[in-house]
Amino acid sequence: MILALTGGTGGAKLIQGLAAEIDPAELTIICNTADDAIFHGLHVSPDIDTIIYTLAGLNDEEKGWGLAGESFATLEQLGCLGEEVWFKLGDKDLATHILRTRLLREGRKLSEVAERLRTALGVKSEILPMSDDRIETRVVTANGEISFQEYFVRQRWAPEVKQVLFAGADQSSPAPGVLAAVRDAAAIIICPSNPVTSIGAILAVPGIRCALAESKSKVVGVSPIIAGASVSGPAHRLMAVKDLQASAAGVAKGYADFLNVLVIGTEDQGIQTGIEELGVRPVLANIRMKTLADKRRLAREVLALV
Amino acid sequence: MILALTGGTGGAKLIQGLAAEIDPAELTIICNTADDAIFHGLHVSPDIDTIIYTLAGLNDEEKGWGLAGESFATLEQLGCLGEEVWFKLGDKDLATHILRTRLLREGRKLSEVAERLRTALGVKSEILPMSDDRIETRVVTANGEISFQEYFVRQRWAPEVKQVLFAGADQSSPAPGVLAAVRDAAAIIICPSNPVTSIGAILAVPGIRCALAESKSKVVGVSPIIAGASVSGPAHRLMAVKDLQASAAGVAKGYADFLNVLVIGTEDQGIQTGIEELGVRPVLANIRMKTLADKRRLAREVLALV
Repeated sequence: MILALTGGTGGAKLIQGLAAEIDPAELTIICNTADDAIFHGLHVSPDIDTIIYTLAGLNDEEKGWGLAGESFATLEQLGCLGEEVWFKLGDKDLATHILRTRLLREGRKLSEVAERLRTALGVKSEILPMSDDRIETRVVTANGEISFQEYFVRQRWAPEVKQVLFAGADQSSPAPGVLAAVRDAAAIIICPSNPVTSIGAILAVPGIRCALAESKSKVVGVSPIIAGASVSGPAHRLMAVKDLQASAAGVAKGYADFLNVLVIGTEDQGIQTGIEELGVRPVLANIRMKTLADKRRLAREVLALV
Repeated sequence: MILALTGGTGGAKLIQGLAAEIDPAELTIICNTADDAIFHGLHVSPDIDTIIYTLAGLNDEEKGWGLAGESFATLEQLGCLGEEVWFKLGDKDLATHILRTRLLREGRKLSEVAERLRTALGVKSEILPMSDDRIETRVVTANGEISFQEYFVRQRWAPEVKQVLFAGADQSSPAPGVLAAVRDAAAIIICPSNPVTSIGAILAVPGIRCALAESKSKVVGVSPIIAGASVSGPAHRLMAVKDLQASAAGVAKGYADFLNVLVIGTEDQGIQTGIEELGVRPVLANIRMKTLADKRRLAREVLALV
């Protein structure tokens, strides 16, 4: 079993490549859930849903988020009823959130909901939320503390960030199967997701980081940063608050206690030594993934390293 | 102020006519809420919504229920996720239920939600649920007790009905403003809704029936039964369980303690005497409402009687 740790968009690209290169039933995925948010009283798990939709082949490749062929009739009507609609929830997507919310209210766990959703949509890979407990990424700005979605979607990562907190993480536990997956994995892949708010959130759940460090299997990461800039999103801006340089070397430093190999962009040839000094082996590759062919090629290169 | 008591579809036609014939701000409407149901964890108030959509000019005239130009993407996706989708909830309609559910969970009352919804959609008439308490119509069949929507929508009123119960009605109170509206109304109109499950449910809320009987204003009803058959729905089948004949005379008998006038179909000329004997004045009219012109004409005739 190959284990992958991931956030949403960025990581989903590599996940898609991995699921195409190996038997998807042999892929287990641990997802960030600290970006989960309540909109209109509905529980939204953006990263889990992105991964499920991607593996079900239902994702919108063009937009890079949500479902293909999506409509927004419910959201528009919520706007007419005076609700804030800056978080774009499509009609089909809402079915997921409506079902999740009902199941959670009936006492089911996030992990049970993820299992129900991925099974219903024919996804063969096991998808585990990092925790069944409520953990909430809070972004501290000069103007106060806001939720991750407020920062990321509503304010389009414009505010200067002073700190990133994972509210509830201290008291949380890994979801059922998470520690066993880390322990039993033949190899572990850290997807090119935000090292602070996606992978960092997963690592904030007590027990997961230790389990990774203790793993005897190879842990291979793919840098989400190329030449000092994020491939997508605000990762490069957020790394500073965790005392990490906004570079592939910063990524390696953030993961140094458990990472064996970091696949970095060919553009970052010059910082290989810095990464080696952290005890992480850098491997150069074309890590930009635009097409499915790019995703599969990078997945193959990563799989060859484990 | 003119007060109207109504259920959904049937009554909505007369409500539409009334709101077109008088200043809609002078029309107050008390709606049945015993058909309310929870679907997918969302609180649906079919009668309130039908009345609001109708008065907002958003209703689907052709289908006779729901919103015009409606799509069903969320419901279809809920079906893909393994949910039962026999109750047809459109995408725009779902916005109403999502908002209502959130507000109720935050501690708001059904009456506050109705006020928020009708205001947001520009409806000038005040819309009052009969009660803010949970009252649930239960239909007792040979095969056990089912909800009203299970009976009405899913089983298309096929089962033989032994009894109709209003669970929770005994302990309920009229919503704020309901008794005052009955007391203060210049005239009261009983819409051609199901006398058992719509108007009957309203009358089951302690205090409303007495207030109607004590009203000094004229109370005028329109029969939902013509020549022994319901204009729409299963009213004629349900009246027997309340010991009422399935006829306009049965309607008059059910309302005799508070009704002054009952507008009946010209087809029912022959049963006028039976209605007079109940102390209710029968008035013949064409009470079938197909077009807006029909609705307005009947509304004018009803208004002329009060």
